[in-house]
Amino acid sequence: MERAVILIECPDQKGIVARVSDFIFRLDANIIQSDQYSTDPENGVFFMRLEFCFDPKRLSRNILEKEFASLAKKLRAHWNLHYHSTRLRIGILLSKEAHCLVDILYRQASGEFHADITCVISNHPDHRIVVEQAGVPYHYIPVSAKTKSKSEKDILALVQKNTDVLVLARYMQILSPKFLKAYKHDIINIHHSFLPSFKGANPYKQAHERGVKVIGATAHYVTENLDEGPIIEQVVERMTHRDDLDDLRRKSRHLEKVALANAIQAHVEHRVIRYKNKTIVFA
Amino acid sequence: MERAVILIECPDQKGIVARVSDFIFRLDANIIQSDQYSTDPENGVFFMRLEFCFDPKRLSRNILEKEFASLAKKLRAHWNLHYHSTRLRIGILLSKEAHCLVDILYRQASGEFHADITCVISNHPDHRIVVEQAGVPYHYIPVSAKTKSKSEKDILALVQKNTDVLVLARYMQILSPKFLKAYKHDIINIHHSFLPSFKGANPYKQAHERGVKVIGATAHYVTENLDEGPIIEQVVERMTHRDDLDDLRRKSRHLEKVALANAIQAHVEHRVIRYKNKTIVFA
Amino acid sequence: MERAVILIECPDQKGIVARVSDFIFRLDANIIQSDQYSTDPENGVFFMRLEFCFDPKRLSRNILEKEFASLAKKLRAHWNLHYHSTRLRIGILLSKEAHCLVDILYRQASGEFHADITCVISNHPDHRIVVEQAGVPYHYIPVSAKTKSKSEKDILALVQKNTDVLVLARYMQILSPKFLKAYKHDIINIHHSFLPSFKGANPYKQAHERGVKVIGATAHYVTENLDEGPIIEQVVERMTHRDDLDDLRRKSRHLEKVALANAIQAHVEHRVIRYKNKTIVFA
Amino acid sequence: MERAVILIECPDQKGIVARVSDFIFRLDANIIQSDQYSTDPENGVFFMRLEFCFDPKRLSRNILEKEFASLAKKLRAHWNLHYHSTRLRIGILLSKEAHCLVDILYRQASGEFHADITCVISNHPDHRIVVEQAGVPYHYIPVSAKTKSKSEKDILALVQKNTDVLVLARYMQILSPKFLKAYKHDIINIHHSFLPSFKGANPYKQAHERGVKVIGATAHYVTENLDEGPIIEQVVERMTHRDDLDDLRRKSRHLEKVALANAIQAHVEHRVIRYKNKTIVFA
Repeated sequence: MERAVILIECPDQKGIVARVSDFIFRLDANIIQSDQYSTDPENGVFFMRLEFCFDPKRLSRNILEKEFASLAKKLRAHWNLHYHSTRLRIGILLSKEAHCLVDILYRQASGEFHADITCVISNHPDHRIVVEQAGVPYHYIPVSAKTKSKSEKDILALVQKNTDVLVLARYMQILSPKFLKAYKHDIINIHHSFLPSFKGANPYKQAHERGVKVIGATAHYVTENLDEGPIIEQVVERMTHRDDLDDLRRKSRHLEKVALANAIQAHVEHRVIRYKNKTIVFA
Repeated sequence: MERAVILIECPDQKGIVARVSDFIFRLDANIIQSDQYSTDPENGVFFMRLEFCFDPKRLSRNILEKEFASLAKKLRAHWNLHYHSTRLRIGILLSKEAHCLVDILYRQASGEFHADITCVISNHPDHRIVVEQAGVPYHYIPVSAKTKSKSEKDILALVQKNTDVLVLARYMQILSPKFLKAYKHDIINIHHSFLPSFKGANPYKQAHERGVKVIGATAHYVTENLDEGPIIEQVVERMTHRDDLDDLRRKSRHLEKVALANAIQAHVEHRVIRYKNKTIVFA
Repeated sequence: MERAVILIECPDQKGIVARVSDFIFRLDANIIQSDQYSTDPENGVFFMRLEFCFDPKRLSRNILEKEFASLAKKLRAHWNLHYHSTRLRIGILLSKEAHCLVDILYRQASGEFHADITCVISNHPDHRIVVEQAGVPYHYIPVSAKTKSKSEKDILALVQKNTDVLVLARYMQILSPKFLKAYKHDIINIHHSFLPSFKGANPYKQAHERGVKVIGATAHYVTENLDEGPIIEQVVERMTHRDDLDDLRRKSRHLEKVALANAIQAHVEHRVIRYKNKTIVFA
Repeated sequence: MERAVILIECPDQKGIVARVSDFIFRLDANIIQSDQYSTDPENGVFFMRLEFCFDPKRLSRNILEKEFASLAKKLRAHWNLHYHSTRLRIGILLSKEAHCLVDILYRQASGEFHADITCVISNHPDHRIVVEQAGVPYHYIPVSAKTKSKSEKDILALVQKNTDVLVLARYMQILSPKFLKAYKHDIINIHHSFLPSFKGANPYKQAHERGVKVIGATAHYVTENLDEGPIIEQVVERMTHRDDLDDLRRKSRHLEKVALANAIQAHVEHRVIRYKNKTIVFA
């Protein structure tokens, strides 16, 4: 049996769930989980995630996709179909701090992510051993103001064909609009603050100076507007006046690992739909 | 337009969602929200909550119910149908401590609950003014070891016909199996600990003595087995060695209010299905 | 026996704790709790909260204060001395939404706050009954653009002499710099967002539009810079794409009650020291 | 300059803080942080943690300890003195699951713990590479019902002299009372549930079956009574009916890492005092 997920976005209208689930039923496939959300019962936008399984000997991918395309047209729907046997390929970019990388590699080794990590790229040479020991190729691509354009080309050459999503696991370089345009897939970033508080540089210091009593970390999709992309996950923790910058850094590293892992998990299970500048994250 | 919620439990089988949503579609009703859960894709039990709206001028309750009963039979489903215009009637029982009562009355006055509070019963006379000022009848029914059976009869006489759910908002008497059997509807209790830790009497003291670093409160349905009923909601908060019994009491009162309010909210919106000794709480 | 709290701020230097605790010891008083914090062991600023009890028959307030003033001079310390038998007097200001007011009144009635509520002032007439039933005088002082200056004068006349702290329990008017200057004591505000995110008007709407996955509420001291004052307490809760503006409002109301109650609790127990634009909140 | 921490437990009495801080002052040492707690102002037990720095050229350890012993005798105090330059040596025991081990090694490499990891022992051979790469000796000591007594002797031989604390990072063997007695120092265990809920075997399954809505992990000191030792830290996370056993395991693994890391951190900074079956954990 093969499993698949369909993500749908279309204008809200009567009978969508009936038509889609009837479609699945008639193909002799079996719904495992189905979830919907509508921005507004009247004139809203409708979103659906449908997980189902089918017997590939009796139903070819070809036919499935062709038939669904025809239904989607009637519903005026954007849609994506993901097969469980086709694992997403993750590329990771990072700079010096490796706590998120180490956490992702361990979770991957534990089988937490239904995905493959196909490459790790860093502008620091330090992480080679830990990455290669996990059986993942490591690429050291230094970046400077002068070489930035060239470096991005090199990165693109590495990830363009063999990744389906990029994860910025504390990558301290800003990717150019050109790069974002050229890379066709989603890019997930971890920002080390509770956005929209403390955008930009040095959020730890900003948080410490403002004297907040709760700190956070935010995983979001990257857009051209820095730190403004759709938020996927946020996690938080209390702090007190006793927490100095080092404590804050230590506590935050932990939050960053959790927020990023949750976001990757949701993304590779195709539970996230981007809509305008927000996300629908199906449970 | 009328709104309604159907809750379904049946053996998992192919095409349930398709058949139910097609049923709704053919009646010219419109699905607002639909959620399902299956304990196991193979041979599991399937649960569904379907919220929809329809024009009562074009579709009578009678026909809706008759038609659905016919479909349900084919699916071998237990089901319940709730109309939005028929508000649930809540009866509240409490003893001396009134923090949950006050919280519920204020939330009710703010329009948080889509329900009516039809009576408040206590074995203490103290709460009359606050209850009557909220426009709710207050019944003082003292309980002693001797009078317990008689008291329960009095309570039953008050709630049997004009409530659809009972809320034990810190009611310190144990309702007899006889009462539970006679009252046909659900009874929600708030237990002042993080169950299954600290069952029984004086959970504050137990928690303090064990030296836990997190305390909690648990809202659950009442069954014959004390503190063992299906859990609807739990909330928690940190504590330290500095928190003495009074602090613990104060923090816990707050948790009790939140857990109970969340549970009532979920119940009156028909988002809870009891199954064996657990609950499915649809989001 | 009388209890008292001393709050101290002075340049960090050797022997402060020794000198202060020796001072208490020689007066035959008994330390109940003592807590300190230093921004930096070298050249930092030192803060101390000392709770102690003494026999007023053997040690007069007069002598205690005179003696301590002499020690404080040597330490170059700012200090405040609060007697437990002198309860703080709280004035509450609010506009239309009363959830924080109701929560404070109930907590007060339960004995949670070691303080008295001496007046409630609102620019809406609606809350008279609930306030007066709690035995607190209610003052309806309407505010308009034209009458603002006059209204503030009226408020000041009411609170200047019979309150030691003002609590803005969802007061939607901005107090003028003139008022802040004239009122000599602290003013605590509850802001209905997780500051510094979503300052200014309509934070619920801002949060909803940004699509955050965690919302919060912030209790802070009021300064001339709106929403920029020292933060005393922040509490947070998760939200999802399903939470519409009404859900957010409901969840936030709850957070506002908790954050404000915690802040009032800390303030009336003299556990808060303001320093620059931050707070030290002793546990 | 050397830093040191004194932990004190003694009968509550007037002037303790004064005498201890005066003692530090007269030695020309400087208090960095001081924290106390009393179970009861009258006839209670008093606990104190005092962190201070001194110039070892002007004050020898010998004299410091001798002088303090004399003061402690007058106060009838139990006490411990820890020098910052003498790092605690941690021994780690684990079985098959390595998530806590990996987390500890990474935190250690990041400088989070002021301690050294001197050996890792497992009844599984799998973790050698990751441990040795971190520069720590790895010992594979299989355990069976027959060899248990011999295995414990081997473990004891390894840890008796070169560790100051043992961490059971998901060690699935029960250490015998004999072992506990022979090993003179503290042993920290991570239990994969929110104790006292779900003691004993397979807490994940127990939690799943009870249908709790919040799960947790508990770090505690090991005593002869299994899962009954003094709790150091507990952390929690929400779960829903959708979380199956695998989800619960994944979420719990994360909680276990956090609870254990926090407990180790508190222990190696000498912020924990055990008293009866509870802990005082100074902030």
